[in-house]
Amino acid sequence: MRAIVIHAAHDLRLEERPDPGPPGPGQVRIRMAAGGVCGSDLHYYNHGGFGAVRLRQPMILGHEVAGHVDALGAGVEGLSEGQLVAISPSRPCGTCEYCLRGQPNQCLNMRFYGSAMPFPHIQGAFRDVLIAEATQCAPADGLSAGEAAMAEPLAVALHALRQAGGLVGKAVLVTGCGPIGLLTVLAARRAGAERIVATDLAGFPLDMARRLGADDGLDLKADPEALRPWQREKGQFDAAFECSGAAPALAGAIAALRPGGVLVQLGLGGDMPVSMQALTAKELSLKGSFRFHAEFHAGVSLMRKGLIDVTPLITHSLPLDAATDAFTIAGDRSQAMKAQIVFGA
Amino acid sequence: MRAIVIHAAHDLRLEERPDPGPPGPGQVRIRMAAGGVCGSDLHYYNHGGFGAVRLRQPMILGHEVAGHVDALGAGVEGLSEGQLVAISPSRPCGTCEYCLRGQPNQCLNMRFYGSAMPFPHIQGAFRDVLIAEATQCAPADGLSAGEAAMAEPLAVALHALRQAGGLVGKAVLVTGCGPIGLLTVLAARRAGAERIVATDLAGFPLDMARRLGADDGLDLKADPEALRPWQREKGQFDAAFECSGAAPALAGAIAALRPGGVLVQLGLGGDMPVSMQALTAKELSLKGSFRFHAEFHAGVSLMRKGLIDVTPLITHSLPLDAATDAFTIAGDRSQAMKAQIVFGA
Amino acid sequence: MRAIVIHAAHDLRLEERPDPGPPGPGQVRIRMAAGGVCGSDLHYYNHGGFGAVRLRQPMILGHEVAGHVDALGAGVEGLSEGQLVAISPSRPCGTCEYCLRGQPNQCLNMRFYGSAMPFPHIQGAFRDVLIAEATQCAPADGLSAGEAAMAEPLAVALHALRQAGGLVGKAVLVTGCGPIGLLTVLAARRAGAERIVATDLAGFPLDMARRLGADDGLDLKADPEALRPWQREKGQFDAAFECSGAAPALAGAIAALRPGGVLVQLGLGGDMPVSMQALTAKELSLKGSFRFHAEFHAGVSLMRKGLIDVTPLITHSLPLDAATDAFTIAGDRSQAMKAQIVFGA
Amino acid sequence: MRAIVIHAAHDLRLEERPDPGPPGPGQVRIRMAAGGVCGSDLHYYNHGGFGAVRLRQPMILGHEVAGHVDALGAGVEGLSEGQLVAISPSRPCGTCEYCLRGQPNQCLNMRFYGSAMPFPHIQGAFRDVLIAEATQCAPADGLSAGEAAMAEPLAVALHALRQAGGLVGKAVLVTGCGPIGLLTVLAARRAGAERIVATDLAGFPLDMARRLGADDGLDLKADPEALRPWQREKGQFDAAFECSGAAPALAGAIAALRPGGVLVQLGLGGDMPVSMQALTAKELSLKGSFRFHAEFHAGVSLMRKGLIDVTPLITHSLPLDAATDAFTIAGDRSQAMKAQIVFGA
Repeated sequence: MRAIVIHAAHDLRLEERPDPGPPGPGQVRIRMAAGGVCGSDLHYYNHGGFGAVRLRQPMILGHEVAGHVDALGAGVEGLSEGQLVAISPSRPCGTCEYCLRGQPNQCLNMRFYGSAMPFPHIQGAFRDVLIAEATQCAPADGLSAGEAAMAEPLAVALHALRQAGGLVGKAVLVTGCGPIGLLTVLAARRAGAERIVATDLAGFPLDMARRLGADDGLDLKADPEALRPWQREKGQFDAAFECSGAAPALAGAIAALRPGGVLVQLGLGGDMPVSMQALTAKELSLKGSFRFHAEFHAGVSLMRKGLIDVTPLITHSLPLDAATDAFTIAGDRSQAMKAQIVFGA
Repeated sequence: MRAIVIHAAHDLRLEERPDPGPPGPGQVRIRMAAGGVCGSDLHYYNHGGFGAVRLRQPMILGHEVAGHVDALGAGVEGLSEGQLVAISPSRPCGTCEYCLRGQPNQCLNMRFYGSAMPFPHIQGAFRDVLIAEATQCAPADGLSAGEAAMAEPLAVALHALRQAGGLVGKAVLVTGCGPIGLLTVLAARRAGAERIVATDLAGFPLDMARRLGADDGLDLKADPEALRPWQREKGQFDAAFECSGAAPALAGAIAALRPGGVLVQLGLGGDMPVSMQALTAKELSLKGSFRFHAEFHAGVSLMRKGLIDVTPLITHSLPLDAATDAFTIAGDRSQAMKAQIVFGA
Repeated sequence: MRAIVIHAAHDLRLEERPDPGPPGPGQVRIRMAAGGVCGSDLHYYNHGGFGAVRLRQPMILGHEVAGHVDALGAGVEGLSEGQLVAISPSRPCGTCEYCLRGQPNQCLNMRFYGSAMPFPHIQGAFRDVLIAEATQCAPADGLSAGEAAMAEPLAVALHALRQAGGLVGKAVLVTGCGPIGLLTVLAARRAGAERIVATDLAGFPLDMARRLGADDGLDLKADPEALRPWQREKGQFDAAFECSGAAPALAGAIAALRPGGVLVQLGLGGDMPVSMQALTAKELSLKGSFRFHAEFHAGVSLMRKGLIDVTPLITHSLPLDAATDAFTIAGDRSQAMKAQIVFGA
Repeated sequence: MRAIVIHAAHDLRLEERPDPGPPGPGQVRIRMAAGGVCGSDLHYYNHGGFGAVRLRQPMILGHEVAGHVDALGAGVEGLSEGQLVAISPSRPCGTCEYCLRGQPNQCLNMRFYGSAMPFPHIQGAFRDVLIAEATQCAPADGLSAGEAAMAEPLAVALHALRQAGGLVGKAVLVTGCGPIGLLTVLAARRAGAERIVATDLAGFPLDMARRLGADDGLDLKADPEALRPWQREKGQFDAAFECSGAAPALAGAIAALRPGGVLVQLGLGGDMPVSMQALTAKELSLKGSFRFHAEFHAGVSLMRKGLIDVTPLITHSLPLDAATDAFTIAGDRSQAMKAQIVFGA
């Protein structure tokens, strides 16, 4: 079977790999159907890593994936052959201190698809065939493979929402309209926010934000002062989701939050200057959000019930042979939101 | 002008009252358009009061109201003549200990429309003309008068939701499908609940619950064991909203909540036996919810944006002359959900 | 070796049991030093069980225990022979849904010393020699065996405190001055409560409450109205800990809590009438608290640092031969708070 | 009467001011007894302001004050002539949006003693006679004037503790052992923290930290790696209080907090670089804490009950004539913790 393997920056190869064979007890053999290219995949492609995380050996990329059940291992219930499943890339150990504290996303022995953090690296899921634990698979009947492959980033957004507490009737700001930001807009609308304002530096992502339900899309490149009305009287927003990783966006959000408000930081950046005096004087809470766990299955269920519709985000679907094109397009913010790879038979 | 006045149980009279005159500074003169009959109005009508609260003098009923601005007092901004407004019946004093703690719904000097708790009683809003503070008025452009008159019970449901925290992706149980229970179903769906199960003892309310988005409507009269599957393995629900005030419903909810879950009690009943051992062993939180404040305006906004649609709940609209029929019909659970009174020109 | 075995109500026997042998890997062999008689032990002794939990086979009692390390199993670090340890009776499975949610006290496969809930029953720890997991053992250097044997009920009190949130500067009510209530008084003082009021129906427990730091001890038998001043203006307490399991105590606490206050229910009773209208109108939170987990080791540490002193609660220490006397005395509220059994060499 | 007036950096004058006369209704006339020099007072003295806040007119300094009641205005109850009172410098308006949300410390019209933020500036309390509202006065019977004058910084520390939630049995880090840091150590010990580690760059403050109950005092100048053991396995602390305003302290605290932990930021600094990647990956909450409100009276009560002892922090007491010396000494971290000014008869 074939897999998409990164060897070094810009050295992406479609390689033959041995078929992994039948599933063991509790496992499922899956024929991959669709995979989305994520920001971290792009970092490996463009830079060979991010921050302290560097590629040290060839690695199969990909962690936003969905496929069809090809065979069931012994003891697996609730899944059937041919069924479309969304596949969670998160595999906590279940025995470390954090797993036993109910914080599996902080697992000390996490094996997350397509991660060069540990060595040997954790091989990813952009491959024709994958053996996964049945517990990683969320039934996705009624969804397209592309929608099911959005389950992972949707889970990230839903997990971030949980850090903010209840949003019904609240005023919400989303800074940075990449896929995570837009999924946050969708999720905040689903969560009953009364008003959602999205900001970005380009027109295409903001058009999409409005289409997905944001009340306002502010282009801070065209009008750097557009957030001012929201910063009056100590701030107007109850919650903000910072999805850009950019210091000016963070500063603008801090200025626009009302005292006691919550800023959830999703974008993984490096050190950032923070307007600490404003944060302290207004008693804001700045909360980090990292990955997800239970939200994966919850997000698939919300999609299946038509309560969240992610299809507008899928702007490009390319065949496996054109994997490199998919990576190139995925980086083009002027026309691409989520580029996905379609795996053939 | 005319007003609906309760003198004693079953003694409801349509009486002439002097026109209240022009609005003072900061006030608004409103021509009433629609008013909903609430459970507490029914208690006054049927029993002359509830619990320790007894009618001691004639009282104008009504607190779920909407009307059109007839005249603006000095200094009022943001409202215009002819504009439809939803009118909040909650008038906290702004100076007592609880107002200054940000708990205005606990105001020691609360003057809530149509309440016989204090003496003299607080006159209600079922009247052709009302003078109110501009701060009580939420612009309701785009809504019907009937929808705007649903703002008060909707606010009660939204406030209850806030006691439960974030509900995105959660499993929610609503016991008791009266108007408050159904509004809670609507609000929980709006808030992103993954699964909503509603229970009642009659078919009509359950049909409406399913129509409003509940995944399941369980008739516990037809099948008293219908909640059993949800009570396995220490309970399956993350949150429950008890809207019936009935002890068996409360017991069933406690049994169906997972350990650490939250039960929000909305129904104002008297003393109730509580399965304290289950509540303690599963470390449940039983939280009371009482009225609302900021959620009033938030609910109107959510309705105006089409994010919550309350129209299916309005089953009956009767003219002012037929006020007594409205009260009679309002008590008929087999065909009525919310009966409203229409105030003429 | 000998063990205290309950066969039926009032049929308590000191029996020979085979020595359990050496400890296995990760285990510790302990020579028991002291064990406290708890309310549930008394229920088995006096009634053969409580609620639905009935004795169906002979069972060794006891779960509040401490002893000296006799031998270490392979791989055990951090403990040494002869060291005094407090022994946690809580043994969660580490693999069920609740263990993996960080709620081990809700473990579906919990094996808690001296419990007749499962069948076969979980044998208790009132025995000369015990083999335990090293993870159950908290080093208790510097404490007496009696203090170390108070670790379990202290953990229950500390866990209850966590349900209430921060207590610094708050006004706290404790209803029911049995051992758990008094430990709650101690813990609330340690947690920075500004004012602690304790209530009971007898003089001896209240004297001890005052001695342990309560600002006021109210005898509600002598003066049933003693709580009235605290119930004015919707209530004066921020938090209440209900440790008696008695409905009047719960009602008095509900009336004395300020709106938005928290009542933590520790006493395991059956169904109790609850003043639901007051709870709802004042938006109180009634939270169950059940057992403990991390608080066990934390409590031992607080005792070792002299930050909590439990010694006044230990009113009686009897030798193993006088076990039945210990059980009899333990039930005498007029003179006993905590009766402990001393295990010989 | 005399007052300490700042005209510009290093231009501090002891000036005659007219006696303010008798107290009005609800007010109290106070003879000042003691006043503590705070960091912000020092900023005015050394730099003429801090950040965007600049001195634009002469201003009486001082907001940590206590004195004796000289005369009571009409309607004042609960206070008596000659009584020692701690005087809160916080005077919220009671009518703005934030006062009505229960967030008086965020009052839009706050008049806080000795603040050059608004113009005209709010005159401070370093003066022989002060007229204050009775509500600002907390009875301080049994305390020395110096202790009562510590009520304001103690309230700041107690308010910060509330941002962190319950601390019983938790591991706490305090970075920066100035007066606020040391009061936080005291408060955390009172709040039941199991372990308290304090850090600083000098020996004198750390000696005091240990004396006040910190388990460990780490000198990060002598040993910059001293926090390393606490940063293993993703971090060991449950909560951290950052009181230094220094970026390296913040970074060290972030690295030492366990996933899900809380960092409360008290030190008012400017923009600070924040290790955002660590904060996000470990899902930390960084919460600002600003001033106080209800904690003022609570802190005085805790001191009066002997539950918190602040006396070791008062290192210097100088007469009013030596005010400039007091300011000079207050800035000397090698020997001064809190320098107070004593006001004569």
